[in-house]
Amino acid sequence: MQTISSKENRIIKEAASLFEKKYRDELGLFLLEGPNIVKEAMEEGGRVRFIFTLAGSSSEEVQEIAALAEEKNLAVYELSSEAFAKVTQTNSPQDIVAVMEKRQMTEDEFFKLVQNGNVVVLDRLQDPGNVGTIIRTAEALGFKGLAVIKGTADVYQPKVVRAAAGSMLRFPIIFFEDEDTLTTVFKNHGKKLYTTAMQAKSVYDADIKENSCIVIGNEGNGVSKKLLENSETLSIPMEGKTESLNAAISASIIMYESLRQRR
Amino acid sequence: MQTISSKENRIIKEAASLFEKKYRDELGLFLLEGPNIVKEAMEEGGRVRFIFTLAGSSSEEVQEIAALAEEKNLAVYELSSEAFAKVTQTNSPQDIVAVMEKRQMTEDEFFKLVQNGNVVVLDRLQDPGNVGTIIRTAEALGFKGLAVIKGTADVYQPKVVRAAAGSMLRFPIIFFEDEDTLTTVFKNHGKKLYTTAMQAKSVYDADIKENSCIVIGNEGNGVSKKLLENSETLSIPMEGKTESLNAAISASIIMYESLRQRR
Repeated sequence: MQTISSKENRIIKEAASLFEKKYRDELGLFLLEGPNIVKEAMEEGGRVRFIFTLAGSSSEEVQEIAALAEEKNLAVYELSSEAFAKVTQTNSPQDIVAVMEKRQMTEDEFFKLVQNGNVVVLDRLQDPGNVGTIIRTAEALGFKGLAVIKGTADVYQPKVVRAAAGSMLRFPIIFFEDEDTLTTVFKNHGKKLYTTAMQAKSVYDADIKENSCIVIGNEGNGVSKKLLENSETLSIPMEGKTESLNAAISASIIMYESLRQRR
Repeated sequence: MQTISSKENRIIKEAASLFEKKYRDELGLFLLEGPNIVKEAMEEGGRVRFIFTLAGSSSEEVQEIAALAEEKNLAVYELSSEAFAKVTQTNSPQDIVAVMEKRQMTEDEFFKLVQNGNVVVLDRLQDPGNVGTIIRTAEALGFKGLAVIKGTADVYQPKVVRAAAGSMLRFPIIFFEDEDTLTTVFKNHGKKLYTTAMQAKSVYDADIKENSCIVIGNEGNGVSKKLLENSETLSIPMEGKTESLNAAISASIIMYESLRQRR
């Protein structure tokens, strides 16, 4: 275990830069905070670059994880409170932060994991809480991967990572520059795209057991034209006067319906 | 239309106090922000106390709503930007705010509206975004009311109101001091309580078409003991390694399943 007491230390400065998307992209790294998820990350193996703990933390869990990390020959740095404050942005810091390597996935790797499974497509969705919740729910309801079109909130930002919890570490994610490329690639892999609208065939009447991809559009502008043209539109039956559902809620309802059909 | 230029004006100070729960409770009022929802509030009728607009707003919609409000003999105050800043807390203010009367509902009124319908029960849920999303989704999926146990995030706080959108104006809400009273009252009205857990009878196998109440517990501590003892436990089928779903997502999936069974 090494000790870092200065917030000007190079390692601290590099870690702190990961609060900005630019540096996450450049360095291929992101931050995880809190004992539960750091422990999970260590168990999943392979992608933890360093671990930071707060010197003198009263959390036994944090001590245990640090000891476990040393056993696994992971670099653990004990930080002064001044230095630790640089690598956390939460209101109630949890005394442990991991610097993680992003998982870069090729098209082949992604579709090998997905096989005949279903995929969620995020088409420029902005709210990080929604993005994280969709990742967590997609894994729980048996979807097999996530495709992200450029312009979507960065999935490696702390708010997304928090909302997605452990799913962030496991769920296969692939990135696309634009909707044209995605449409072609998904077609080649036999995947069918679906979008949602108020007036359309009910999701009950569609067979979305497998090879089905639910496209979730931008909160303001909806799904982009190219994807709309290449999708079948489904509706979630609604009652009452509400005209729409939150993006994460619509996504979850459709994913649940798919799971129900598979059972 | 009257003009208020000082942020020290009594009406402005009273409206600004509504950012605190204490004063919302004391005055029985809450704030709504943005042209769409203020317009909806005027159409629903009866509960708009005043309307504030930003003097010189470039929004045509805001001008139109102000004119409509005057036609309906509602008090409209045009505020200087200094005074308007006191009655909004959003990052991109929308130039119109309404002060609304809360709707106080007796047990009889509530159950008359609910009839044989389903109800969501919030048992000390803390996250305002979750509370608001649950209200919006409950209305959309045909639930008939919301019961809130003391200790839950205040449903009249701005974050809840924003997430709930127009449903906040329409959805029947009843408040309970504690779970004992709620249990007795719900039993008297022939309502059955359900909670969710990882290991339990699947929600597919329960009949939750009507008279069913989904209890959503606190994010950290779950559902209180008394309610657990008086509920049937259901599980949402899951795949993957995720161990739980976000509270608003579980609630929505169960409400969707209920709607599906009714169709």
